[in-house]
Amino acid sequence: MTELDACLTEAAQKFGTPSYVYLTEAIDRRLAEIRAAFGPDFALSYAMKCNPNPGLLSWLAGRIEFLDVSSIGELRLGRQAGWEPARASFTGPGKRNAEIAEAIESGVGELILENLREAIVANRIAGEIGRVQDVLIRLAPSRVPKGFGDHMAGRPSPFGIDIEDSAEQLPRIFALPHLTVVGLHIYSGTQCLKPEAICENYRIFMSIFRDICEAHDLSPQKLVFGSGLGIPYHPGDVPLELNKVADGIRAELQTFCAEPRFSDTRLILELGRYLIGEAGYFLTGVVGIKESRGQRIVICDGGMNNHLPASGHFGMVIHRNYRMHRVGGGEGEEKVNLVGPLCTSIDRLANAVALPPLDEGDVVAVHCSGAYGLTASPIHFISHAYPREILVEGQTYTDISRGGFMSQFTSF
Amino acid sequence: MTELDACLTEAAQKFGTPSYVYLTEAIDRRLAEIRAAFGPDFALSYAMKCNPNPGLLSWLAGRIEFLDVSSIGELRLGRQAGWEPARASFTGPGKRNAEIAEAIESGVGELILENLREAIVANRIAGEIGRVQDVLIRLAPSRVPKGFGDHMAGRPSPFGIDIEDSAEQLPRIFALPHLTVVGLHIYSGTQCLKPEAICENYRIFMSIFRDICEAHDLSPQKLVFGSGLGIPYHPGDVPLELNKVADGIRAELQTFCAEPRFSDTRLILELGRYLIGEAGYFLTGVVGIKESRGQRIVICDGGMNNHLPASGHFGMVIHRNYRMHRVGGGEGEEKVNLVGPLCTSIDRLANAVALPPLDEGDVVAVHCSGAYGLTASPIHFISHAYPREILVEGQTYTDISRGGFMSQFTSF
Repeated sequence: MTELDACLTEAAQKFGTPSYVYLTEAIDRRLAEIRAAFGPDFALSYAMKCNPNPGLLSWLAGRIEFLDVSSIGELRLGRQAGWEPARASFTGPGKRNAEIAEAIESGVGELILENLREAIVANRIAGEIGRVQDVLIRLAPSRVPKGFGDHMAGRPSPFGIDIEDSAEQLPRIFALPHLTVVGLHIYSGTQCLKPEAICENYRIFMSIFRDICEAHDLSPQKLVFGSGLGIPYHPGDVPLELNKVADGIRAELQTFCAEPRFSDTRLILELGRYLIGEAGYFLTGVVGIKESRGQRIVICDGGMNNHLPASGHFGMVIHRNYRMHRVGGGEGEEKVNLVGPLCTSIDRLANAVALPPLDEGDVVAVHCSGAYGLTASPIHFISHAYPREILVEGQTYTDISRGGFMSQFTSF
Repeated sequence: MTELDACLTEAAQKFGTPSYVYLTEAIDRRLAEIRAAFGPDFALSYAMKCNPNPGLLSWLAGRIEFLDVSSIGELRLGRQAGWEPARASFTGPGKRNAEIAEAIESGVGELILENLREAIVANRIAGEIGRVQDVLIRLAPSRVPKGFGDHMAGRPSPFGIDIEDSAEQLPRIFALPHLTVVGLHIYSGTQCLKPEAICENYRIFMSIFRDICEAHDLSPQKLVFGSGLGIPYHPGDVPLELNKVADGIRAELQTFCAEPRFSDTRLILELGRYLIGEAGYFLTGVVGIKESRGQRIVICDGGMNNHLPASGHFGMVIHRNYRMHRVGGGEGEEKVNLVGPLCTSIDRLANAVALPPLDEGDVVAVHCSGAYGLTASPIHFISHAYPREILVEGQTYTDISRGGFMSQFTSF
């Protein structure tokens, strides 16, 4: 049995299925790769929307410089997990006034302004409590290279200020007395596996940052690069070669940083999926097998209620199986359909996936489940129990299940 | 302002947005229509997976004969809401052994057996506690007429015993000493708006029920018909004419019931969506408007995190807008895109929907949101607060939000 499977087996035996298992060694490894590839060029910001588990957040708090939150609930969770608010930035196109107020009062590092409305509200609130609030302005580029799984550039989108409108809108933000524009933010595409496309995207960012800072005579403290770094979800996906990204952009980043305007600028790489995604496995246990009309259907104890993206209902047009394996391996292969326990035909984890023969009690591990797993899923659908979440640090298995945690933010 | 909008306005003012509003008068009206159409032919069973809100369940407990649960969590919720376990049947293809045990020990009315494995487990458990458990056998037909939004017939599926396998498998269930087969169950298609297709489907059910009861000399106490009755989600959908269904099938149902074998049989119509769906509205409030590259984007405080099906990520291949309106009406129309507050481009509630001009603070009501709304959604995605749920009975507005309720089933 592989080391990984020994670990997943122990987690499943100790805590049962369905469950999510996060391996800190894998996150550490990924972190080291990122630091080695980019050296000091980039500080890191964890986009916690991809996995806001409190135990994981605590573990990350000492390892990552910054935290990007996308709701006041996330800011609260981050604080409880040990992140000082000053290390947090607050993104999101639909920030409500009360969220903006609480973020400012909490001492959030920066509000990332997505539009003029937020700027005006933030300015008023900051003024009312005698504060000057640091802000970043999010910009929506007019283009993104091909190769991103999802992108928000060059099309109508709720995110940020469209670059075409920046000349008109930005001066109105700069003029607000209770805000200090300390930098800019771009996140225009996600889940890219092509190094050259990612480099090209960073070039677009640098070009925009240069133009905007020049136009508004801004010497930014921070410039946030939405990473776009992707992970190999599906069989056949070629993992991203991070060094190719770093090698392809290093010289230009260094030239950029050497410009006088950016001499005191901190470049920040915002990422979530790439940091956490591959370190997480979703374990689902086999409840029963049904031979039905020529197909073998494996019925599992956790399905789309626990892992919506793996079931193909998270913005995908066509369901593509996630990579997965039978924990413990096995001889031979057979094609099966993997379904969850729900009374609905859309609860499918895999179609015609080749796995070693499965039997009741076996466990299947769905890969790339560390990000956009549990909280991206309708866990109350059909009122099954929450899956457990397990943090594995070396030989230590910690139950970091959210349970009641998830429902404490009901009064906002 | 319409009466409906006066009510939705009051709910939004009292409890804020985002929120779900359920109108008991609309459910009562629908119930009366169903009773009038089918008279005493059918008793009703509420498939609570479509909306397991405890307040709603309590309200329904005195109005509907039976409850269909699809997990042990649902059985617990039903009991807490005042449903005696004897009125509950337990469906679901992935029942775990512990769920089967708890259901039997709780005194569940019937287990609805989906496969032989469940029969064997249930028989063993019932035997161990000296019980004989009533069961229904779920059958998977080999065909379903055209016109169902989703169906599970004539194709490989985890649901029930394929009719082709019944001759081999059913005798093995009948032979189990601690189970009593009291009837049969078919649910082979949902969300149908065509009366003739629904009638034809019921004919298929009756034919199967007849054949199986004949083959196994069963005089059933109960036969469950999965209703398949649909609701008009999208603009242009023609509402189902329930009387056409009833008129089209009444004579055949009565002939069926007159057969000696079925003289003591209770026919049960299992339904959820048709009962509750149109009585519910999802209210989402406008946080801001963005003009972006030629489109008008309305950013709302609740989106796919609160209402996944309306955002098109619940088994739909193509996103079709739900019916919706601006609460309070308004002059003129403009085409807008409605998005939620999440930091992801898949958070869309409507594409190019024509609504009266919207402004900050306005409220949009998404129709057909009483079923497969909140619990079908990833409400923890990006850690926003839970939306409120409001039950409106005449002039009484009751906050039946689930809050902590939703997280109490974590220890199974």
